[in-house]
Amino acid sequence: MSNAELIYLDNAATTFPKPESVYQAMDQFYRSYGGNAGRGGNPLARKAASLVHETRELLKLWLSAPEVAFSPSATLALNTAILGADLGMGDVVYVSPFEHNSVLRPLAHLRKAVGIEVRVLPFDKQTFACALDDVRKQFRIDPPAMLCISQVSNVFGAVLPVDELSLLAKQANARAIVLVDGAQAAGLLLPTMERIDALIFSGHKSLYGPFGIAGLAFGTRWRPQPIFFGGTGTQSDSLDMPAQGMGRYEAGSQNIVAVAGLHAALLWLHEQGREHLQSHLNSLTHALVSALQSIPQATVYTPQQQSGIVSFTLEGISPQAIETALGAKNIAVRAGLHCAPWSHEWAGTLEQGGTVRVSGGWFSSEKEAAHLFDSLKAVV
Amino acid sequence: MSNAELIYLDNAATTFPKPESVYQAMDQFYRSYGGNAGRGGNPLARKAASLVHETRELLKLWLSAPEVAFSPSATLALNTAILGADLGMGDVVYVSPFEHNSVLRPLAHLRKAVGIEVRVLPFDKQTFACALDDVRKQFRIDPPAMLCISQVSNVFGAVLPVDELSLLAKQANARAIVLVDGAQAAGLLLPTMERIDALIFSGHKSLYGPFGIAGLAFGTRWRPQPIFFGGTGTQSDSLDMPAQGMGRYEAGSQNIVAVAGLHAALLWLHEQGREHLQSHLNSLTHALVSALQSIPQATVYTPQQQSGIVSFTLEGISPQAIETALGAKNIAVRAGLHCAPWSHEWAGTLEQGGTVRVSGGWFSSEKEAAHLFDSLKAVV
Repeated sequence: MSNAELIYLDNAATTFPKPESVYQAMDQFYRSYGGNAGRGGNPLARKAASLVHETRELLKLWLSAPEVAFSPSATLALNTAILGADLGMGDVVYVSPFEHNSVLRPLAHLRKAVGIEVRVLPFDKQTFACALDDVRKQFRIDPPAMLCISQVSNVFGAVLPVDELSLLAKQANARAIVLVDGAQAAGLLLPTMERIDALIFSGHKSLYGPFGIAGLAFGTRWRPQPIFFGGTGTQSDSLDMPAQGMGRYEAGSQNIVAVAGLHAALLWLHEQGREHLQSHLNSLTHALVSALQSIPQATVYTPQQQSGIVSFTLEGISPQAIETALGAKNIAVRAGLHCAPWSHEWAGTLEQGGTVRVSGGWFSSEKEAAHLFDSLKAVV
Repeated sequence: MSNAELIYLDNAATTFPKPESVYQAMDQFYRSYGGNAGRGGNPLARKAASLVHETRELLKLWLSAPEVAFSPSATLALNTAILGADLGMGDVVYVSPFEHNSVLRPLAHLRKAVGIEVRVLPFDKQTFACALDDVRKQFRIDPPAMLCISQVSNVFGAVLPVDELSLLAKQANARAIVLVDGAQAAGLLLPTMERIDALIFSGHKSLYGPFGIAGLAFGTRWRPQPIFFGGTGTQSDSLDMPAQGMGRYEAGSQNIVAVAGLHAALLWLHEQGREHLQSHLNSLTHALVSALQSIPQATVYTPQQQSGIVSFTLEGISPQAIETALGAKNIAVRAGLHCAPWSHEWAGTLEQGGTVRVSGGWFSSEKEAAHLFDSLKAVV
């Protein structure tokens, strides 16, 4: 397979390719300074520690967050926020119908382990808009202990009203914990961080960095309990995790190669500018939707507010068969449930095996959308 | 700082440099095939999934383990094994005095949360040998629910009698869970895997791979409960983690760049051969010990069986000051507690702020040991 010819439309799984500077930074940093981050006089350890510090500062700026904790993956960051929130019997957690298994499965665990209740917020099946008035009433009757919602649905690309929902949650219960799964849009869409206790970001998705680095951006003073334990390089004579600071969520060696990549990605993002990235993604979304809608056999899911991701199905052909047929033409898309089963229950796409998901990124072009259209025409 | 001149003797923190093939594999794989591992017809996803599969097979061979689960770090792998073991009130867990905070802190959490008891096995302070007869008696009186020991002390380089202790534990309680922290020696020293429920390995240490990939090598049919939850790309319509298979410990996107690096490292290890690696490390250990012992002001810790790591102190100079002085001469060593506080309580080195740790690897030479000696002579 020559990647020169590959059309990659699976950016919701991971953005690809990365900016050239990300590859270079990872390789060069690892070759030159691949020591273990730490304190003291060891020159490599010092260099690694200062890279971690700088990257954290860049992230705080880019995400408008007062504090940021690193984690090896968004899944682990979500687990930390959800399992570390000290929820108890009868606590009501509201989610959107669009949540990923990295939210649903930790919540399902808490439902069994401590007896929380999980409720799904109402969304309109045509526009994908949230019925905010109904939510207000629901929150009044059963105030949220936690609200946990995505910024953008990883299946349908629907942009959720994070600001409105976080406001309703905090109005109904000032101590409600508001978590936002920003895997698909952190840093691209900027929510009002003052009302978000933790925005979970993934380095290898909307931030254009590498695998292995993700985390929690804290908008308020709320902090979860750590859910795993180990060496922090500080207060090593204590068997407790440090009570303060971000180190309590970062036990173990920092993945400094991934940090070096994220550092380069953040500089690159800053250079592009947020609006430039947003407008590229918006044009691309329109191009993808138009191309897909011009195929008569296609059902295309079109939320009123949609960012980067488009799901569709073709009459009489399974999503898997479409993925395989496009794969044979060197077009990378993704078929199935996309780890978000409730999205498909909600949309009625579970029985047919989910959807085909097409997702663009900075390096995707409208020409590629046109090519996708041509290839699909050959399939139907 | 020119790294051509750097003398890196901090391989216990992370082995550095890596084999050239590791850097190349990471960079090339990421540039060419940096998709998200998964099933189906997406060509990048297929390539990534097959890399993960091959790496797992290579690891199973190199570690003589029937099954291997990946984890982003040895800390998380240890947490999975310890917190996922379903220990209860009064269960007795035996550890060596040499355990790392990645073992001690999860155990401290369980002591508070469920009431386990943690006991320290007896070791001789001169030879660092384990008093196996005393252990046998102890195990008879209070049989172990779990034995959790390092292969090699990360502070003193002492090689622990893993085979003997695992046998005693299983004899005293056939259902005792035996966990071995192999961060410093997995793949280098081969324990009898049939008696080890899980050997925890770190990709970036004794396996010469990159940060971001570690895991559990299961020697028996024992499996912990998953401690974190998320998307697995399989059984996505269920809110439970899969009941079988390694995927249940691997929620979230695989770090395929790190996997690519580990893949190259395993091929490299196989080419060198285990005995070759062992004998190099043994010669180096002797050279380091000899060099250090020839300094009259030095107290050098010399376990009878010692692998790669040597701790020392100098009369009248703090470990930190030595680290800094050597750092200024471009020699990377590490001072402090090395995240293993009980080691220092046991050895009586806690008050003085720990030890200076010098740790060699494949790319360290006896010439570097000589250079360390010269530089230390200038310090004292």
